[in-house]
Amino acid sequence: MNINALWNLSYGVYIASVWDEERPTGCVVNSAMQITAEPATVAISIHHDNYTNGCIEKTGRFALTVLSLNSDPAIIGTFGFKTGKDVNKFDSVKYDIKNDMPILTDGCAYLICEVINKMETDTHTVFLGKVLDADFISKEEPMTYSYYHKVIKGRSPKNAPTYIELENGEENIPLQKREKYVCSVCGYEYTGDIPFEDLPEDYVCPICGQPKSVFIKKE
Amino acid sequence: MNINALWNLSYGVYIASVWDEERPTGCVVNSAMQITAEPATVAISIHHDNYTNGCIEKTGRFALTVLSLNSDPAIIGTFGFKTGKDVNKFDSVKYDIKNDMPILTDGCAYLICEVINKMETDTHTVFLGKVLDADFISKEEPMTYSYYHKVIKGRSPKNAPTYIELENGEENIPLQKREKYVCSVCGYEYTGDIPFEDLPEDYVCPICGQPKSVFIKKE
Repeated sequence: MNINALWNLSYGVYIASVWDEERPTGCVVNSAMQITAEPATVAISIHHDNYTNGCIEKTGRFALTVLSLNSDPAIIGTFGFKTGKDVNKFDSVKYDIKNDMPILTDGCAYLICEVINKMETDTHTVFLGKVLDADFISKEEPMTYSYYHKVIKGRSPKNAPTYIELENGEENIPLQKREKYVCSVCGYEYTGDIPFEDLPEDYVCPICGQPKSVFIKKE
Repeated sequence: MNINALWNLSYGVYIASVWDEERPTGCVVNSAMQITAEPATVAISIHHDNYTNGCIEKTGRFALTVLSLNSDPAIIGTFGFKTGKDVNKFDSVKYDIKNDMPILTDGCAYLICEVINKMETDTHTVFLGKVLDADFISKEEPMTYSYYHKVIKGRSPKNAPTYIELENGEENIPLQKREKYVCSVCGYEYTGDIPFEDLPEDYVCPICGQPKSVFIKKE
């Protein structure tokens, strides 16, 4: 079995959002799909350890913001590599309220869903949501997971269904001769024209916002 | 609510295949996603009316072939617009047996899954499958549903979760002044350089293989 073949499944990149009492919270989701057309229902898969999971469980609702090719990649850092237990992820993004639910404005579409069923697995809950409201936010093209990996060069957070443990420094990214610097928090690889060492000291990871000091040189 | 916003969810294009007694059968699936990483499990959504649904129910297994950008679009016609009740869809394609299951060779990857759970909706069954085997078939890029719609200009079969009833001849395709001919079986729109009327009489729809006579002129 070559488990890497599962990387050939295609996904979008979404922010699942929900109320945590009075404040909004959420996380990155790539496993989301439409299940039925009439009534429109969608399924999403969220890890048990994601704080968002418990909030959806409690409130019975979730929203999905579809990220676009032009969405700020820092959104993925905030919603994919930080936890809503510790930080208010919505502090750093613009958001709007639709059908009483929080959605990000930096996307191309949103869906508001009511949980009508769920299926448990060892690690993830599959929530089935009836679509209560949906609309376009912009005319931008949706971001695909493949685009995120190839162009933005992020790496899946550990709770993602698509996460694969890298063995002994094994890399999905083709090796280049130039020294590589990788963010130790989110896995972002610096690929700018300026050598990494020459970047200003206030440089931060464009994905997760961590300082230059968390970057490590890859051999 | 603007239900068209759901078109911004991203998908691949897959053939779900299964044994129907001694012969292989299957159908097009776009709603497929990984649910958990360890053990690797995937979910697919299949309409109750699809013959494949009952066969998966009966055998407890399914395979997924991931179509690539170079896969023959006629596969989508055969597996998306014909029914396995009436025809042996595998008669017109090359296939292989992996882990005792039939897969198409004209794709970029395959997965063999054992059904471990399912969730029913009004119209579709969501099958949760533990991945028993997976591998690449080729190095081609996976076909996305968006690519299929934009480039191959197909239309969803009625049983697809993403199917949307077109109202009063409303079209998703931008209007052009030239007369348009559309296959009445699968919705394929002819866009070749030769005027449709001048095509040879043995012209067949490249998607579903139906003859020239089933094409209708759109006003």
